[in-house]
Amino acid sequence: MSPDASQTDKLSRVQSNDAPSNPSSSSKPLRMRTNTAEIDSTITHPGSVKINVTGAFIVDQDSSSPTNGHGNTNGGSHDTKDIRLPNHTAVVSHIAVDIGGSLAKLVYFSREPKSREPGGRLNFMNFETDRIDDCVEFMKQLKIKQQKLNGSRPGELCVMATGGGAYKFYDKIHEALGVDVIREDEMECLIIGLDFFITEIPREVFTYSETDPMHFEEPRSDIYPYLLVNIGSGVSMIKVSGPRDYKRVGGTSLGGGTLWGLLSLLTGSRTFDEMLGMAERGDNAKVDMLVGDIYGTDYGKIGLKSSTIASSFGKVFRMKREAEREAEDSGGLTNGDSDSTTSSHPAPNPSQKTKSAPFSAPDISRSLLYAISNNIGQIAYLQSEKHSLSTIYFGGSFIRGHRQTMNTLSYAIKFWSNGEKKAYFLRHEGYLGAVGAFLKRQPRNWGRRGSFEESGGLGMDWNKENDGD
Amino acid sequence: MSPDASQTDKLSRVQSNDAPSNPSSSSKPLRMRTNTAEIDSTITHPGSVKINVTGAFIVDQDSSSPTNGHGNTNGGSHDTKDIRLPNHTAVVSHIAVDIGGSLAKLVYFSREPKSREPGGRLNFMNFETDRIDDCVEFMKQLKIKQQKLNGSRPGELCVMATGGGAYKFYDKIHEALGVDVIREDEMECLIIGLDFFITEIPREVFTYSETDPMHFEEPRSDIYPYLLVNIGSGVSMIKVSGPRDYKRVGGTSLGGGTLWGLLSLLTGSRTFDEMLGMAERGDNAKVDMLVGDIYGTDYGKIGLKSSTIASSFGKVFRMKREAEREAEDSGGLTNGDSDSTTSSHPAPNPSQKTKSAPFSAPDISRSLLYAISNNIGQIAYLQSEKHSLSTIYFGGSFIRGHRQTMNTLSYAIKFWSNGEKKAYFLRHEGYLGAVGAFLKRQPRNWGRRGSFEESGGLGMDWNKENDGD
Repeated sequence: MSPDASQTDKLSRVQSNDAPSNPSSSSKPLRMRTNTAEIDSTITHPGSVKINVTGAFIVDQDSSSPTNGHGNTNGGSHDTKDIRLPNHTAVVSHIAVDIGGSLAKLVYFSREPKSREPGGRLNFMNFETDRIDDCVEFMKQLKIKQQKLNGSRPGELCVMATGGGAYKFYDKIHEALGVDVIREDEMECLIIGLDFFITEIPREVFTYSETDPMHFEEPRSDIYPYLLVNIGSGVSMIKVSGPRDYKRVGGTSLGGGTLWGLLSLLTGSRTFDEMLGMAERGDNAKVDMLVGDIYGTDYGKIGLKSSTIASSFGKVFRMKREAEREAEDSGGLTNGDSDSTTSSHPAPNPSQKTKSAPFSAPDISRSLLYAISNNIGQIAYLQSEKHSLSTIYFGGSFIRGHRQTMNTLSYAIKFWSNGEKKAYFLRHEGYLGAVGAFLKRQPRNWGRRGSFEESGGLGMDWNKENDGD
Repeated sequence: MSPDASQTDKLSRVQSNDAPSNPSSSSKPLRMRTNTAEIDSTITHPGSVKINVTGAFIVDQDSSSPTNGHGNTNGGSHDTKDIRLPNHTAVVSHIAVDIGGSLAKLVYFSREPKSREPGGRLNFMNFETDRIDDCVEFMKQLKIKQQKLNGSRPGELCVMATGGGAYKFYDKIHEALGVDVIREDEMECLIIGLDFFITEIPREVFTYSETDPMHFEEPRSDIYPYLLVNIGSGVSMIKVSGPRDYKRVGGTSLGGGTLWGLLSLLTGSRTFDEMLGMAERGDNAKVDMLVGDIYGTDYGKIGLKSSTIASSFGKVFRMKREAEREAEDSGGLTNGDSDSTTSSHPAPNPSQKTKSAPFSAPDISRSLLYAISNNIGQIAYLQSEKHSLSTIYFGGSFIRGHRQTMNTLSYAIKFWSNGEKKAYFLRHEGYLGAVGAFLKRQPRNWGRRGSFEESGGLGMDWNKENDGD
């Protein structure tokens, strides 16, 4: 199946609000019912379309979706966790893209594929940033499809763009698509997106523990203040005091880009998922220096268990030297560079390569995943202390729903706070910025809990608010 | 010259306090003047010997020393920065060793090599921990020399040991030397050693800046509270509220062991100094993703300069993939492991290896040194904030007097604290624990400023205190 067709088929088909589709009444294309006046209004004022999120939910197993799993389409990867908006029927004339250092994340609205159901859904796609051309091409296809649906109106698609790439690739996108590209601040989009997920989407926010890997938190409105830790290539930590009231208080350059970059050098892995898969199988104690390795026992006086990691990769230098000396003593040759020690497939004959290759790719992967996650967890905790924030959300494309990563981050927060603070995760962790950009132009009172109102909008009747689109 | 002879020649020769050596009066061996009663007392009570630190100073250029520079002796490395104790003449019956995960640090007292000068000096040696046998052998030689000086008295040498290896290698040391091995707590020794250096030794503590790389702080007595950041294989952060009043408040597993381990894998370097030398020459912008790489410009709104490191090693994954794709497109073969990308000697022919080897060992070294140092600096700052500590000392064998390391740590503290806090360094940064263990058994009022008295001992007349040994 052509990926372009499969994806763009889902692009928002225009439908009149006054005549919501009855799934049983017709199987004809909904494009027939285009309300031209509404399209005009939408084009002129991209923010004037309200999204009706009443009854919104995450589509867990979407058997009807043409691209199940992390299907690769045109160089992009499609996340299955679409969000169904069963009561939203209006045209959505814009798509949003968050272009980071490593990944470009795309969010767009579409009607249901077969047009048998009312409403539509938010779709989530990502592309590697160095394949930005694929991403632009995909947006172009969305635009073409949109034009077909809306008639041949030039420029009716509006692209909301955020992340560094919104600046770096502005000209490219603008020229390729010939549409308006509205740039939005990255941090602001992140918190708008997060606020949306926290307040509006059931079964979105969860805590992780080994016994209960996805313990959902109910959406709630009293969310401020909190700390957002967004882990992409690098890490940003943002203190959020209220709606659109935020400050980047810190961050670290040791993030996803560090893990991916070092592991690609050390293990030869070529995809993130391959790296995470290896980390699952590895034993970090083979490369990390544990307290027990130094003390031969616990260091009880200061509460360090013998299994505590004293030094990440702390065993490597010593063992590598030892192996090299042994090889030299036995007349073997070592050239001192890394190929002899980091093969992901240790030679089966222990008298040969294995002697100088004591480190396996899975062990290295696990050690580095631990190191980076632990480090982010500790800094996040310390920032939360400095700024008196008791709630810590982790977002960004680093996490990828990966068990060990979340376990390590959760443990770090629990450990450092003596169990007083918790790490919260999101199922759409990588799309905070893109969703924020998508929503940015919405009227402030669109949300059912009014989470973007300056007043906080607590206690409003959300059923009343969003039926007017 | 035999390294054993050169080092053990300097071991403390016994001399009567009542008849201090007049350098011009005699060139006969001082061992002739042994005061037997004092030796007996010393053996029974190792802590009863007071060290007279009056007039102590660091020997900067020691042309009379048999091992100039970082001479390697018997597998150990000798630090030239001896501390002269011109007024100390008593026997010192113990040596101290701090055995960490990567290095064992040794401190011992010796009379001047040719016995022409009064007093003696503290000597500083280090050995790799995986060569602990060399260290034990060296201690054995010290013991034999000591026995010769003192007569054949079994067991007169006492070893003060700290660090994890004091436990792990206790039996080994005890059996090999046949002497008492007294184990001391690692953290306590660190702060005793640091207190000694801060309060007693001129030209020891300094701040670093590019324009003034070694700006000395005067020794002072009002030193509490402070934060000690000790960077060895791993990192410990210790809040010190008063003499022997301390708590380990945190640390990180990303320390020297991580740098050394990863760089030995990635660059093939085999010594720490080789790694630091490469870091001097490298350009981290070739592997790190800078803010400018993501934005194409500054991210001015939140104060991030385009040269700020957004993601350490953040360029690697993308560029490696690109190089591999290019190689594949041109029919070349890549095996996906690291040997093709991390050669420290890129092939001169750009059509060959260089295309898939865009990363040089110096660039990688510099990036990782920055990443680890920055990270430690940030965590140290955050811990200092959490515990309201305005003074931050950096110790441990990671620093090694290295310009870039100190520059990065200094910059991190300055950056995060908006210039309100400073990083302090020590010339004997690696020997805090060993010196602390060496001094631990001293009477509490031995110091000229009484820095180890529970009362703090401020304002005492130190000239009076130490003339009785």
